[in-house]
Amino acid sequence: MNQKLRADADRIIQASIAAVMPGAAVEKALQESQEFRDFVPGDGKVVLVAAGKAAWEMARAALSRNIRIDEGIVITKYGHVKGTLPGVSCYEAGHPVPDENGFAATEKALQLVSGLGERDTVLFLLSGGGSALFESPLIPGEELADLTQQLLACGADIVEMNTVRKRLSRVKGGRFAAAAAPARVFSIVLSDILGDPLDMIASGPAYPDRSTCEEAMAIARRYGLRLSDAAWQCLGRETEKELENVETHITGSVRELCRAAGQAAEALGYQTVYLTDALCCEAKDAGSFLASIAKSYARIGADAVRPGSEEAGAEPTDNEKADVVRPGSGRKRAFIAGGETVVHLTGKGKGGRNQELALSAAIGLAGIPGAAVFSIGSDGTDGPTDAAGGYVDGDTAAELDIRTALSEHCSYEALRQSGGLIITGPTGTNVNDVAVVLVEG
Amino acid sequence: MNQKLRADADRIIQASIAAVMPGAAVEKALQESQEFRDFVPGDGKVVLVAAGKAAWEMARAALSRNIRIDEGIVITKYGHVKGTLPGVSCYEAGHPVPDENGFAATEKALQLVSGLGERDTVLFLLSGGGSALFESPLIPGEELADLTQQLLACGADIVEMNTVRKRLSRVKGGRFAAAAAPARVFSIVLSDILGDPLDMIASGPAYPDRSTCEEAMAIARRYGLRLSDAAWQCLGRETEKELENVETHITGSVRELCRAAGQAAEALGYQTVYLTDALCCEAKDAGSFLASIAKSYARIGADAVRPGSEEAGAEPTDNEKADVVRPGSGRKRAFIAGGETVVHLTGKGKGGRNQELALSAAIGLAGIPGAAVFSIGSDGTDGPTDAAGGYVDGDTAAELDIRTALSEHCSYEALRQSGGLIITGPTGTNVNDVAVVLVEG
Repeated sequence: MNQKLRADADRIIQASIAAVMPGAAVEKALQESQEFRDFVPGDGKVVLVAAGKAAWEMARAALSRNIRIDEGIVITKYGHVKGTLPGVSCYEAGHPVPDENGFAATEKALQLVSGLGERDTVLFLLSGGGSALFESPLIPGEELADLTQQLLACGADIVEMNTVRKRLSRVKGGRFAAAAAPARVFSIVLSDILGDPLDMIASGPAYPDRSTCEEAMAIARRYGLRLSDAAWQCLGRETEKELENVETHITGSVRELCRAAGQAAEALGYQTVYLTDALCCEAKDAGSFLASIAKSYARIGADAVRPGSEEAGAEPTDNEKADVVRPGSGRKRAFIAGGETVVHLTGKGKGGRNQELALSAAIGLAGIPGAAVFSIGSDGTDGPTDAAGGYVDGDTAAELDIRTALSEHCSYEALRQSGGLIITGPTGTNVNDVAVVLVEG
Repeated sequence: MNQKLRADADRIIQASIAAVMPGAAVEKALQESQEFRDFVPGDGKVVLVAAGKAAWEMARAALSRNIRIDEGIVITKYGHVKGTLPGVSCYEAGHPVPDENGFAATEKALQLVSGLGERDTVLFLLSGGGSALFESPLIPGEELADLTQQLLACGADIVEMNTVRKRLSRVKGGRFAAAAAPARVFSIVLSDILGDPLDMIASGPAYPDRSTCEEAMAIARRYGLRLSDAAWQCLGRETEKELENVETHITGSVRELCRAAGQAAEALGYQTVYLTDALCCEAKDAGSFLASIAKSYARIGADAVRPGSEEAGAEPTDNEKADVVRPGSGRKRAFIAGGETVVHLTGKGKGGRNQELALSAAIGLAGIPGAAVFSIGSDGTDGPTDAAGGYVDGDTAAELDIRTALSEHCSYEALRQSGGLIITGPTGTNVNDVAVVLVEG
């Protein structure tokens, strides 16, 4: 193993996860908002509502910034409240299956924001899991559960499910923000969905909804859903289309994870190329693609058959420096790709998409000195394993039967043998994955 | 379809194929060699030997450069001799299955270079197909054919096959160059194999061989090959390990295809990032990966939820310009990836790897303005089709059922419907593929 590259990888991993921890992300969002004067509470009441798996950490970060909070509520998953927060009531509830505790807490949140005036402000902190944790259904909980089962059984996709369920909720589809009007809602969203679709994250309690009643009823008819009369009536009531009292700030998204990884690489002297924050292809092919990049940038010296050829040549001109990123100028380089790859399971091995990506990259890197690929899930748990992801370099393939490990999807054991597991422990945040190519100059 | 991007794509395609045509590639190689004084024929005889599918074009290009050629021979595929060349005998032979015409012509080439002296020079022009076309077996042709069948049937890989066959040849494994010694051999190789492994291209007639007799005999024993006594004796005779009389110049490789594509994009005002010239993953995942890049660079304006955020911000600083390629600076950008992707066929549709890559990219690009992905095979025939490849942009997906077309591998028909086929006709060169992402500023 290339110890220098592994050490650089570990520093980049540490810095990038730190940047997207719920607390750090909220602090950053608030700081920027205050600088840009987006978040300037009026002289009325300031109410905090935090919902989702990271609600408690987000609320604590907001309190730590010395913002006046008159009253607040946290609704998070069982076991996720880590202590008391001054002036804030903390509730735990069911996730991923919503329960009565969540409904009751959400009802309390609605009461808290009802009757606020124009000069009042709601600081709304939303994170992953909010769909289940932040819910007050317009129909009985059992009926909602039954309907969800029906939608799953008939093969409805996530957009169709949300189109129906938003209309059965007091808070989804922008209704929470509408309930808070005319108070101003400043919403900070910790995004765990690729592309940050604000109407999808927790079904958009404070974001305008694009779906229509016609679509909802067409879905119900198409799949022959069994609905009570009350539920049918709900489908005919439109969600919020415009919310003039809301300002939204996305934070801790995969884009920030990528940016933090890039900045950490730059601090270590790497020229950084951001490839994408929307990666979504098969994990092993993403690994192969990234290894191809590493290979092309790392091998120049060895492959130049004759001196004087363009790639192996002198320093690029100033013009080239600004306009072209090409192999051969002898610089340390980092390529950053964020997103969420997929694995189509065919074996019964243990691993995860980040470990599979890394292991696949090891094939392309085999024998190439001075290049590494690593990939991590920001939550610290890649697949059903205790690893955040994997690191590989030109030495990895020599010790392993990688193709067998890949075909049986047992990347964990293979990386364990090569010393390539990346272990961070559960991080407490979840903003998808980042994969990085490092090439020594 | 975005007509501006399509027009840019067509110009980039034209320029990049032109740069790797056999004639242009040989001219470029000779020009550089003369400039760098690598190719300076002595005052002795100058003999030209050209073998492979592009042999005739390569020989014609060499003759056009006003180099003194005293005598020459061209060995190419049936139908590939386009006319007479002064002082050069042209032969046609069997490909991909070698035949007696090829053996006889190769024997003539050996005679031509035998007995040359230190002050004589062999200009050796090699292209794809040379393994079959340039061959003089040490065993009868039928026995060689039978052995090839045995090796294919037992599942030997290409390295194992070549390790055995090199030892049964008078020219492979460096033996042609050894036969020409002490004359100097200046070898120009038009590479059609990824990574330009010179001992693999046409089994390396003028390149030192790394395989050993022990390996060859172990392979014969492992697979239980039926060999005559004469063949067994051949396996024990070592190939050439050092060739001090040879200088090799690779030209027209996929790297030059990428460079030409990048230069054409730069001429059109795009900031160019070379990703790789060693792409080898699944075509549809390469398409997805490239679309992810396009998406991240194209969507910034629309996605910036608040003004003043870093990506949507002002021009990058000078330091950023030199060190970082990141979305959002409003520049036109091109990303170049060369290589050869693979398709695992599951349907019975018509298409090719470049068309499949492009069609897959269309999913990720759907609805995104100002971004396109295209991919071409430099030979102008992608898969069993009359198209060189495919072009897609944000409008393509609206008109097509892409997922069905991909699952049935009928990318040709889908791209035909969307106007995305790239038709060049057979180009007469073959240096793998190049895929390009274009993003408007």
